[in-house]
Amino acid sequence: MTLTREQQAEIEAQRASPQPTLRAVSPGMEAHLYTAQPVLDHGFVRVIDYMGDDAAVVQAARVSYGAGTKHVSNDEGLIRYLMRHWHSTPFEMCELKLHVKLPVFVARQWIRHRTANVNEYSARYSILDREFYIPAPEMLAAQSTVNNQGRGATLEGQEAARVLEILKADAARCYDHYEEMISDEGQQGLARELARMNLPANVYTQWYWKTDLHNLLHFLRLRADAHAQYEIRVYAETIGDLVADWVPLSWKAFQDYRVGGATLSATAVDCIRRMLKGEEVTQETSGMSKGEWREFREVTG
Amino acid sequence: MTLTREQQAEIEAQRASPQPTLRAVSPGMEAHLYTAQPVLDHGFVRVIDYMGDDAAVVQAARVSYGAGTKHVSNDEGLIRYLMRHWHSTPFEMCELKLHVKLPVFVARQWIRHRTANVNEYSARYSILDREFYIPAPEMLAAQSTVNNQGRGATLEGQEAARVLEILKADAARCYDHYEEMISDEGQQGLARELARMNLPANVYTQWYWKTDLHNLLHFLRLRADAHAQYEIRVYAETIGDLVADWVPLSWKAFQDYRVGGATLSATAVDCIRRMLKGEEVTQETSGMSKGEWREFREVTG
Amino acid sequence: MTLTREQQAEIEAQRASPQPTLRAVSPGMEAHLYTAQPVLDHGFVRVIDYMGDDAAVVQAARVSYGAGTKHVSNDEGLIRYLMRHWHSTPFEMCELKLHVKLPVFVARQWIRHRTANVNEYSARYSILDREFYIPAPEMLAAQSTVNNQGRGATLEGQEAARVLEILKADAARCYDHYEEMISDEGQQGLARELARMNLPANVYTQWYWKTDLHNLLHFLRLRADAHAQYEIRVYAETIGDLVADWVPLSWKAFQDYRVGGATLSATAVDCIRRMLKGEEVTQETSGMSKGEWREFREVTG
Amino acid sequence: MTLTREQQAEIEAQRASPQPTLRAVSPGMEAHLYTAQPVLDHGFVRVIDYMGDDAAVVQAARVSYGAGTKHVSNDEGLIRYLMRHWHSTPFEMCELKLHVKLPVFVARQWIRHRTANVNEYSARYSILDREFYIPAPEMLAAQSTVNNQGRGATLEGQEAARVLEILKADAARCYDHYEEMISDEGQQGLARELARMNLPANVYTQWYWKTDLHNLLHFLRLRADAHAQYEIRVYAETIGDLVADWVPLSWKAFQDYRVGGATLSATAVDCIRRMLKGEEVTQETSGMSKGEWREFREVTG
Repeated sequence: MTLTREQQAEIEAQRASPQPTLRAVSPGMEAHLYTAQPVLDHGFVRVIDYMGDDAAVVQAARVSYGAGTKHVSNDEGLIRYLMRHWHSTPFEMCELKLHVKLPVFVARQWIRHRTANVNEYSARYSILDREFYIPAPEMLAAQSTVNNQGRGATLEGQEAARVLEILKADAARCYDHYEEMISDEGQQGLARELARMNLPANVYTQWYWKTDLHNLLHFLRLRADAHAQYEIRVYAETIGDLVADWVPLSWKAFQDYRVGGATLSATAVDCIRRMLKGEEVTQETSGMSKGEWREFREVTG
Repeated sequence: MTLTREQQAEIEAQRASPQPTLRAVSPGMEAHLYTAQPVLDHGFVRVIDYMGDDAAVVQAARVSYGAGTKHVSNDEGLIRYLMRHWHSTPFEMCELKLHVKLPVFVARQWIRHRTANVNEYSARYSILDREFYIPAPEMLAAQSTVNNQGRGATLEGQEAARVLEILKADAARCYDHYEEMISDEGQQGLARELARMNLPANVYTQWYWKTDLHNLLHFLRLRADAHAQYEIRVYAETIGDLVADWVPLSWKAFQDYRVGGATLSATAVDCIRRMLKGEEVTQETSGMSKGEWREFREVTG
Repeated sequence: MTLTREQQAEIEAQRASPQPTLRAVSPGMEAHLYTAQPVLDHGFVRVIDYMGDDAAVVQAARVSYGAGTKHVSNDEGLIRYLMRHWHSTPFEMCELKLHVKLPVFVARQWIRHRTANVNEYSARYSILDREFYIPAPEMLAAQSTVNNQGRGATLEGQEAARVLEILKADAARCYDHYEEMISDEGQQGLARELARMNLPANVYTQWYWKTDLHNLLHFLRLRADAHAQYEIRVYAETIGDLVADWVPLSWKAFQDYRVGGATLSATAVDCIRRMLKGEEVTQETSGMSKGEWREFREVTG
Repeated sequence: MTLTREQQAEIEAQRASPQPTLRAVSPGMEAHLYTAQPVLDHGFVRVIDYMGDDAAVVQAARVSYGAGTKHVSNDEGLIRYLMRHWHSTPFEMCELKLHVKLPVFVARQWIRHRTANVNEYSARYSILDREFYIPAPEMLAAQSTVNNQGRGATLEGQEAARVLEILKADAARCYDHYEEMISDEGQQGLARELARMNLPANVYTQWYWKTDLHNLLHFLRLRADAHAQYEIRVYAETIGDLVADWVPLSWKAFQDYRVGGATLSATAVDCIRRMLKGEEVTQETSGMSKGEWREFREVTG
């Protein structure tokens, strides 16, 4: 990650002068505000602002259920109850605003989560920096042979070296040409909105991204998952660490009921019942396809 | 408005202990936090939390436009530019969370604005209070004779008295029966989720409602408008006063470019041009319908 | 359900004249178009239009995965794969538009599903009909004693009779007064937008409601569930029957992977594994709360 | 535009066999179904499905306003009224599904319209084709000197030739390397999800994109505007031509009230009034900034 000296000074200034507020304050998140968490080779995630905390989730739920919620002994119990029964609206009452620097091909996956607010750096308006994501050698993976949408073994030796050479050289050449085309020295200079089309998808962009806790957890469930592409997963994991400090009770319930849990089909529930009665169930007698059976065996351990 | 002593004590406690934060703070909004602003006879609007301020709008815009925005001399100029050119995403970077108490028929209009987060008091779960909106005598209006969707003159004399008598008596009787049906003294007691169907639409409900500044301004434009029903307009006006103190520059731009402005059709633009050249334009020669012409004359004054 | 003779004639006219189209056609849904399916005592659900069919789900998925999807042998297999792995976007490519007549208290629950398009009958503009939902005697249930948000046993004898008497009499009286207040005979006549506040929540309203298949299935999962209030559940079940004829493969996958399935927490997965290894697990040794354990035992059977 | 022989045969098959339907049918749109409308050098827009027509807009509005709308003499009058008064929900009752092939940098602008359903070709899963947008020489424009976000004069002579040479050579080289990296001949072969990062932003992608008429018109207003980048504007214009044949009355109202119209600020309305009274108003006396005044003069002609 490369923060300019100017950016670093700005962050320090923002962190230097706390002001009094009457709003809900999350001490865990205050500790992270503005600080850039490095991700990949040039990327980062910075918390710009947040609204609410675990108590805000509880407060919203108590508006809905009125006096009725008082019999749930404490905040943690209520948050677990809400998570277990898929009550989404109380979690929507917290909000997070991030500043993210990320490669364009990661941004293209990320933006498919539509329930969020985004202000992205405009390459129509401004000039992109010469910064490209080049994978670390150990992250250069072969195409998976069993999964069309996944990675297999790490590339080795000369093949790996050749890939890195290509990625670096093409990025450098494309950026040189980008600069050459937009230059107005001795020529008219191509419009930025056109010149940007010559930049490959590993160029870095940045944006402000704001979403509520419910949609954020949904994003993290999909993007911190083992099946997500590594390059977006590291962003999701970095954000997850911030969320754990922001709303620790919600995060714990999310880990237990979403991330570490499992969803079973009607067929799978039936198999569990048969197995608990002592029946030997095989893929053939399960009623599941091979793919389903493989996933089912991962659940039953 | 009737706040219980308990609620009042809770508000005072919330307002008593400011905490330090590194986040953007809006002094104008801090002054309003938690305090209930009375609306109608039993309703209120309370700010529970907010995210961002005018500077946050500017900050998000500058991410998009990079160094390019520096030539706009100041924050106010940039906010005016964004509002004038319908740039919505920077305004989405601010968020407001309200606690609102309002009659059900107002809630039914309000909820049609879908881009918001809502936690409403559950009448399946809890028992509604005996509170009904009874209009002030001067707000009892006759059906408009020119507009199917509007109000005409104020009702007078005996008719007004009779209406108030009906509204009060029916609300009281329906609530008595509601209590009678759910009572479990000497009987089973009807389920709350069924009993509530006996309550008329002027019964009060309450909710937490959270939305971003862009969608909030859109809501205010429609609901603080002279054509909106009075009973929702007073809520919109109350919220507008809070927004004015929260993000004064955005509010001013909104007043100038949305509320006080006008939208002209192609035909209307053509008429303006003809009139400025000295032509006498009438409805007949304007190409507009009577309705359009009437609205056009309001613009040209 | 009461359709006027005029409405019935309109439906017959709409069903009488098929036209040629090149679009995807679902024969199962064509058979239902426009016909009113009765729900509750005066309500109905009518299909006004639909877009797409099972093949449209497959087609959209194949755009995403290109030639890669060809190894999935057939449409049903692909649809099951998509449902199992929570791929939502292909199901968003089908759309359903319904005309629904429903009590206001049901409409208030329904509208909380925000990802839909709605045009509701306007009681500001027009006069509501004298139609109120009065539960069938066998649906008059007592408040649950174990669940704050549910129903218990059916009301009996005099108590049931008294409830029906109240609901009928209050609805009739409120409507009589509504008519009296808006009447312009010998008086000014109260504005409709005000008079409606005197009508109880079991009055019927109607709307056009349009949503995509993904969001529709989410709605059905929540509202056709045993924990949903009976009065909205019957609407969800009626719509479910229509969906089964519209997109039979998607419906079957939805039944297997969502409706009939189960979601397990990390703790529950751990318990399953321990039980399959022969351990005797009790609530005390499970790490679950009583509520969780009760739900867990329903899954294990 | 390059459709394969296979795609062309598929389109012809789809167009060969009309089926009967009871749904609303738009003859204007049936004529376009499936046919690829060429855009840019390799792109296209194809209508895959649609729901509703002008009558469906009217029908939804009449549900809302009931008998009250009958005094509006005809469908066109009602549609114009709805458009003039910003009634959005009736227009949401029509839906359009398109298959679009477009350069990635255009897709990145397009996706910022969040209220739509999208299934994009997955470059994690499948291999992108060797197709890149290379601007026609007359579309190669210099950076605007007055507007940071715009184009100026067309590039000339050697500069233009050099730009085209760069764009073609870099695209070809990057694609050669993409193929080389993913090849599994004599090597492991890099994962597709990684290799794609070497492709520049003028590579073509494709997606299914579905949205409702209200949001579609909003998209067209912004993207068919003179300030939109040429490369997305041609898509918007192509779609506009299709919409004109699909819902001709709505399209006409949209042209008159949105596209050809103007929005005035409170200050501008005041200036219009002063000018109509005969006052000579200049920028200095107008109360407007230079930018606002320039835009105002365009309206007054």
